[in-house]
Amino acid sequence: MNLHELLRELREDNGTRIVLLVADGLGGLPLEPGGKTELESARTPNLDALAREGVCGLSVPVLPGITPGSGPGHLGLFGYDPLEHRIGRGILEALGINLEVGPRDVAARGNFCTVDADGRITDRRAGRPTTERCVEMCKLLQEIRLPGLELFVEPVREHRFVVVFRGDNLGDAVNDTDPQAVGAAPLPARGADPASQNTAKAVTAFVAEAAKVLKGQAPTNMVTLRGFARYPKIATLQEITGLRSAALAVYPMYKGLARLVGMDVAEAGSTLSDQMETLRRLWRQYDFFFLHYKYTDSTGEDGNFAAKVEMIERLDAEVPKVRQLNPDVLIVTGDHSTPSKLKSHSWHPVPTLLWAKTCRPDPVTEFGESQCLRGGLGQFEARYLLTLALAHAGRLGKYGA
Amino acid sequence: MNLHELLRELREDNGTRIVLLVADGLGGLPLEPGGKTELESARTPNLDALAREGVCGLSVPVLPGITPGSGPGHLGLFGYDPLEHRIGRGILEALGINLEVGPRDVAARGNFCTVDADGRITDRRAGRPTTERCVEMCKLLQEIRLPGLELFVEPVREHRFVVVFRGDNLGDAVNDTDPQAVGAAPLPARGADPASQNTAKAVTAFVAEAAKVLKGQAPTNMVTLRGFARYPKIATLQEITGLRSAALAVYPMYKGLARLVGMDVAEAGSTLSDQMETLRRLWRQYDFFFLHYKYTDSTGEDGNFAAKVEMIERLDAEVPKVRQLNPDVLIVTGDHSTPSKLKSHSWHPVPTLLWAKTCRPDPVTEFGESQCLRGGLGQFEARYLLTLALAHAGRLGKYGA
Repeated sequence: MNLHELLRELREDNGTRIVLLVADGLGGLPLEPGGKTELESARTPNLDALAREGVCGLSVPVLPGITPGSGPGHLGLFGYDPLEHRIGRGILEALGINLEVGPRDVAARGNFCTVDADGRITDRRAGRPTTERCVEMCKLLQEIRLPGLELFVEPVREHRFVVVFRGDNLGDAVNDTDPQAVGAAPLPARGADPASQNTAKAVTAFVAEAAKVLKGQAPTNMVTLRGFARYPKIATLQEITGLRSAALAVYPMYKGLARLVGMDVAEAGSTLSDQMETLRRLWRQYDFFFLHYKYTDSTGEDGNFAAKVEMIERLDAEVPKVRQLNPDVLIVTGDHSTPSKLKSHSWHPVPTLLWAKTCRPDPVTEFGESQCLRGGLGQFEARYLLTLALAHAGRLGKYGA
Repeated sequence: MNLHELLRELREDNGTRIVLLVADGLGGLPLEPGGKTELESARTPNLDALAREGVCGLSVPVLPGITPGSGPGHLGLFGYDPLEHRIGRGILEALGINLEVGPRDVAARGNFCTVDADGRITDRRAGRPTTERCVEMCKLLQEIRLPGLELFVEPVREHRFVVVFRGDNLGDAVNDTDPQAVGAAPLPARGADPASQNTAKAVTAFVAEAAKVLKGQAPTNMVTLRGFARYPKIATLQEITGLRSAALAVYPMYKGLARLVGMDVAEAGSTLSDQMETLRRLWRQYDFFFLHYKYTDSTGEDGNFAAKVEMIERLDAEVPKVRQLNPDVLIVTGDHSTPSKLKSHSWHPVPTLLWAKTCRPDPVTEFGESQCLRGGLGQFEARYLLTLALAHAGRLGKYGA
């Protein structure tokens, strides 16, 4: 019996509410030996109070040493085994902009790029155009027709867009056409199996047409496609746990991830304060709330230690708004670490706190990596966190007589 | 997706170097309640410095409570699941003496023993003959011919030799013929399946011939065979991780284990100092170095606490030679614990340190079992150690978008 089968068997509905607050890329590293991490450097009286009253630990997003992207990182937090369920970049992007995708679709992420007269890429991001220009260029691409297929092109932001190929017998084992370097031409698309060869043929035709309609539109005069992905089949969180769940996210990808596991995606505004207001407004309508906070990751990716500290402090300041709602379980964690020192996602375990009335005390007095090492949750695979939340919410019956 | 598939997908080559220093049987126990272990008793300024700068923890070789032999212990450290891959003693011994074995082979370890006029064993190790006598006796055994089979007999040392049966359809589910007691005759060989019955028949014939050619050669007048094993199919470390790896070991079995996972086995001399010199010499030619140090295990097996402490201190004294080479990742661990108090391998988790520039600080200031308990690696299955090494070496890409 796997974890999801177990949860389906044991789940009970008791009207309790769980809040999962994900500070993206929360875990960090000190800049200097013997120093403090971003979270340890931040002044976080509200998180510290939760840590004192609750139980802490370090979550391992996938496996020791494995650095996850946002997809696997969030799937783990939602209780899914990120090695069993894989979500391609294209599908994530499509979901994130509310582009409906289904079983006949292959989605890819597109980038506008700049090519010279010989077709060689001179800027892989087309000089980071404005989102307005991205919208305009996507209108040109939307005119493209391919025989026997439906085609959807939608802007994301700046140089990024999504393209969806809809048709029969389309596979997603197609290489990225982005050569990942300037001075090279976009790569030809090739399919690794017959269905993916169908897709590759469509991609080749699409890119050829794109070159025509974008001719003279430098710097946005060409496209590359990457992350070809079919829509994955995945049981919803409600099917597995019975939780009616809502996602309160600002950034598209996290909305998309939430939608993939069947969460309702709320209009949550554009700030953490908006998200808190939305949480209050929806409080009676759902059992489970996923709040996503992006800026701990983006400041980490920028290598800006001080800014990441500040973003953690801003998050801390909003925590009382959650507590005022009197949740039964409140979790604060990240989907992975993003140490400013490394300017990237990393494999380091993620500081995690779980607050509920049923926590066994541990010695943690402040929310931070070093203290979490002594926490009552120990080091654990992130995919078990939801089970712990359900348990502390009184939503799981006894296994076996 | 299993761990090896994941590593194959994520691996990147960046020219970094990893050193895995295995102090065999490193973990120990105090002799008295409240006392210190061998590692804690030893003066280890160099290991302590690594522990302060790096991250520590306790590795579980197989599963909690499982005491491993050298085979499973090392397979775990090399990143293989020791429950998935089993290597019989016979194959290990054959590999360890450079005896080539392949897919048609069943190898077994042989012991010369002494039998009385009634064929009952009076000394299971034939009075521990000299290795010269072992070589001489093996020459007699090499004269034996079996119909339809090729036979290879090679000396190991003292009373020990290896025999390889090469032929079609030979299984390895054959019992040891060593009765593990004096006063009993060697046991008849029986096969548990048709292929293994073929092997058992060959074994019976071989042993009967051995009794003839060794007649009058007391104390080496009989043989027992044990650890029948086919050559396992196992992907190499390079296939999985891309690492070009070299083994610097003194004892045959560890060379054999390294060869089994595709490592190049270097001529590493006979002392730790020789091994360090070899490491320096080969530094530019490989990405991964496995250094094996036997004496922490053999002194533990002897029950000699003070000698094990001394061997740990000798190891510590050589550590600066590794650091001078400026490795990207340096791991010091054991394949299992061998507490002097128990005079045997044990199941106790193994003190482990990983040094790299990307370690998150932990409170460990000295390398020892008690302090490792508070280390940032926590307690973890040894088979994840290689993944952690690859991560800290920057040799793994991100999993998923």
